[in-house]
Formats: sequence, C-alpha cells, structure tokens
Amino acid sequence: MKIISSPQLLQEEIIKLKRKGNTIGFVPTMGYLHDGHLSLIRRARKDCDVVVVSIFVNPLQFGPREDLKKYPRNFKKDSALCKKYTDILFYPNVREMYPDDFLTEIEVNKLSNVLCGASRPGHFKGVATVVNKLFNIIFPDMAYFGQKDAQQAVIIKKMVKDLNIPADIKVMPTVREKDGLAMSSRNSYLSRQERGDAAVLYRSLILAKNMVKKGATDSNKIISKMRNLILNKKSAKIDYISIVNPETLDPLKKMNKQALVLLAVFVGKTRLIDNILIRR
Amino acid sequence: MKIISSPQLLQEEIIKLKRKGNTIGFVPTMGYLHDGHLSLIRRARKDCDVVVVSIFVNPLQFGPREDLKKYPRNFKKDSALCKKYTDILFYPNVREMYPDDFLTEIEVNKLSNVLCGASRPGHFKGVATVVNKLFNIIFPDMAYFGQKDAQQAVIIKKMVKDLNIPADIKVMPTVREKDGLAMSSRNSYLSRQERGDAAVLYRSLILAKNMVKKGATDSNKIISKMRNLILNKKSAKIDYISIVNPETLDPLKKMNKQALVLLAVFVGKTRLIDNILIRR
Repeated sequence: MKIISSPQLLQEEIIKLKRKGNTIGFVPTMGYLHDGHLSLIRRARKDCDVVVVSIFVNPLQFGPREDLKKYPRNFKKDSALCKKYTDILFYPNVREMYPDDFLTEIEVNKLSNVLCGASRPGHFKGVATVVNKLFNIIFPDMAYFGQKDAQQAVIIKKMVKDLNIPADIKVMPTVREKDGLAMSSRNSYLSRQERGDAAVLYRSLILAKNMVKKGATDSNKIISKMRNLILNKKSAKIDYISIVNPETLDPLKKMNKQALVLLAVFVGKTRLIDNILIRR
Repeated sequence: MKIISSPQLLQEEIIKLKRKGNTIGFVPTMGYLHDGHLSLIRRARKDCDVVVVSIFVNPLQFGPREDLKKYPRNFKKDSALCKKYTDILFYPNVREMYPDDFLTEIEVNKLSNVLCGASRPGHFKGVATVVNKLFNIIFPDMAYFGQKDAQQAVIIKKMVKDLNIPADIKVMPTVREKDGLAMSSRNSYLSRQERGDAAVLYRSLILAKNMVKKGATDSNKIISKMRNLILNKKSAKIDYISIVNPETLDPLKKMNKQALVLLAVFVGKTRLIDNILIRR
C-alpha cells in the first residue's frame, strides 16, 4: 500500500494506472475506520483493479459550532486496518486541499437543505465540494458510500448525474453493532450509559418497519410512535424523524411503495443518524 | 468532422481516444462563430491530437430578462467554419444538458459577484456549471478561452485549480475588427449607427493605456477620462468601467505592475464588454 499526500502526485499516478487499463475503486472516508468503512473497501477490492482509500477530515462540511476539532483521528490504526485491501491510501492535508485563496463551492440545491441539511447549514455543500475534488483527483470508475449517510448518498448520486461525472456510485448496506446501533466514528463520543441508550435509534426504525408490515400507512402516526419510543431514553433529544421519497427526499404523508425513514437524534451531546428503507 | 449531440456518446468516444494516448484540445462556444472563436480552434489544432468544439447556447448563464431567445444561431454556417480544424463538434440540446430534475450549481465565490457578475446575477454560476459539465464529458488536456471574456477566464482558471481539474486553461488574445471593436456574436445586434459608435469601447481602453504610458497612476482619473470619451456617443450607456488586479479582480486605486482595465457598455440595447491588460 502506497501512502500519498499530494493531490497532484496522486492524480499523476492515477492517470498512469488508468492509461494501462486499470479500473479504479474509491472509498472516501474521514478516517477512524470501522467495519462499515471496511465493508466498502472490501467491496471495492472485489470490483476493481486498483483500490484507493482517502482519509481526510473535511473542514468544509463542519459548521462553526460542530465537532471538527475533536473529531476522532487515528492514522496509524487506520492505515493498518485498510492495508490488506488497499493499493493507495490518500492522506492529504487541509492546506493542500484548501489553499488560503480557495473559493469554489458545489451546491446540490433542494436536496442539501432538508433533513440533516436543515440542521447543519452548509454541510452538504462541503460534502459535495470535497467529493468533487476527490473524484477529479482519483477518477474512480466506482465509488463506495454507506447507506447510513443516506442523504449524502442521494446528493452525491445527483451531483454525479448532473455534472456528467463518469463514476458509478455504489451505496452499501449500513453495518451495525450487535444491538443494532449503526457503526459510526462518532459512537466513540458516547459514555457507557449513552451507548446503551443509542440502540433505541435502530429499534425505532424496526418499530416503523413492523408497523408498515402490519398495514400502517400514515407517516405521522408512525413518526409519533417512533418519537415516543426514543423519548423513553432520558439522554435522547430528537433532531428530526422523517419519512421521505428515497430519491427526491420529498416528505411522504402516506407510505409509498418505497419509503426512506430517517432520523437524527442527540444522545447526550452526540448527534447520531440512522435510516431504513421500507418497501411495501 | 464528427457531429455528436449525446453527452454520453461523446464521453465514451473521448475515453477511447484518451486511452489511445491522444491529447484533447477543447473550445467551448455558444456558436455564431467569428474569427475570435476560430483563433482558439486553430490554436487547439496546433497544440493537440484531437480538437473538440462545442456549440451550446447555455440557458443557465442568461438572466430572466436577457437575450437567450434572440441570441444569434447559425449551426450550418458554424459547422462549415470549424470543419477544417475540428475533429468532433459537440452540439447537445438543452434537455440533455439540463434534464427537468437538474439541481447542481457551481459557484466560484467572490470573483463571480463583481463586475459583470454584479450586473448579471447568476451569470457566472451558469458559466462555471456548464464548463464543469463539458470538462467532465470531454476531459480536455487543454481548453481555450478568449481574453475578451476576461472575468470568465479568471473564474474558469480558479474553478479548475480549486477543484483539481487536470486541464490546462489557455487564454488567447482578443480578436478585433479593423476599427478595434472586439469580435462578439452580439455585435450582430448593432444597427449601422451603433456599430460605428461601438468602436469607442476599444478607443477608451487605448486612451487608458496611453495615459499610463505617460505616467498616470490614479485609477479614478483614468476611468473619468474613459467615461467622458465614451459618453460622447449618444447611443452609449456605461454599465461599469473598472481597474482591477488581473487575478483577484480586486479594484486597484493606483495602477500596479499589472492592471486589468475592464468595461461594459450598452450601445443602444446591446451590452458589449471589452478589456485591456496594462503592464507598467
């Protein structure tokens, strides 16, 4: 595994690799890797000739009061974890990605301003911009994202389509702990008590799924039951619970053939997200 | 010369050509080609293995009260004009470039909101977005723009740098009519009287250059003289005259080593732009 920190050197390397006919699989991450990330990397390994993983805590996607500074980092452990499946580990620094005179932003309108985008203004602009840069450096044939960040995946797919980027976006299932909690680097923030409480997010999603299975169709009723379940936990504060069209993210009053149930919940001070796709 | 209208087919064709080691030279245009465009196309022919010209009147860069509908078009003449130097003519339709669900926009902050961007809100967002799309379809090694659209060239260069796009942006000198008027598709709007008056734009730029040569350094004084010269023409209404740093577009109170003098003037109802780079 090569570790490259210069965007330009990586770009030159990739151009050489592509000229030889290699397909490139790319997994963008913010590091502090867990089994969710590793599932993406292993899938890239199966699909592509060359696997590139990036580790970059992207300041552009953090709001001024968010956790950029304390976001967990462990490069040594990360590079050991992905070594087995990765050909190139891209580990740029902030200065090289965003020089002082950096001015360009990519906005996927509408999709970026709802759900997590409403709670975190500018977040998805930061995500779209960094992913666009990474794609221009790495030219992936396939790029891998987790379903846990469902809104992010929808936005990246839309950007790729709108801007004619020739990359295939693969969205892989959420990997969960034994009690159902979606794996996330931010789980490391949780106290023991909070960690226990956090399992309620997934349980509320399963509750929604079971309600639909038994015939429930009214989104408000489903959301209300989820809300009650979650608020049983004292450490939990709901940011949003929403049931939407999985592609347009438009709210659904009634359950459709396909519905995406998403939620963001503060457990203590830690904001966690999760979602489930329900097919009728 | 191949004429291709499908973005996807062109992209596939380009990928094949690049895999064979060809370099791609690209000239994006809105058609109604004149010698300014042809100078770019001829230069691309000299520099690159494959020359791609696009003709697309980009609705995204026109304001709601601007001249999108009446913008001059003549595809037959255009394709005849560029045939000699062009390998692929890309002629997409609006629906294929912007499907109904199109949502993504690229903004080069700060640079896009001054000068022509102040008079034409959203214009450079439209320019940056379409050029980004075209670059993703065509992957140019070199792309050619005219110095006449100086602000556009600065913004495209910035976008390319900020987003790590591996294209070399070449900005070529403005091509002028005998009386100095910068060639522009919009010159076709001018009446005979207006066409005569329009030469005052370039004369005002030469006036600025001569003043600097004779030692003038105060931008306001230079602009004031230019203004007086232009307003001698009854058909002329000044949108702006500005003297700026050629890279940052920040206004210069005093002439620097390098200064870009730009102006936009309505001649009758036709908005014309021009500029000159002055080195001391």
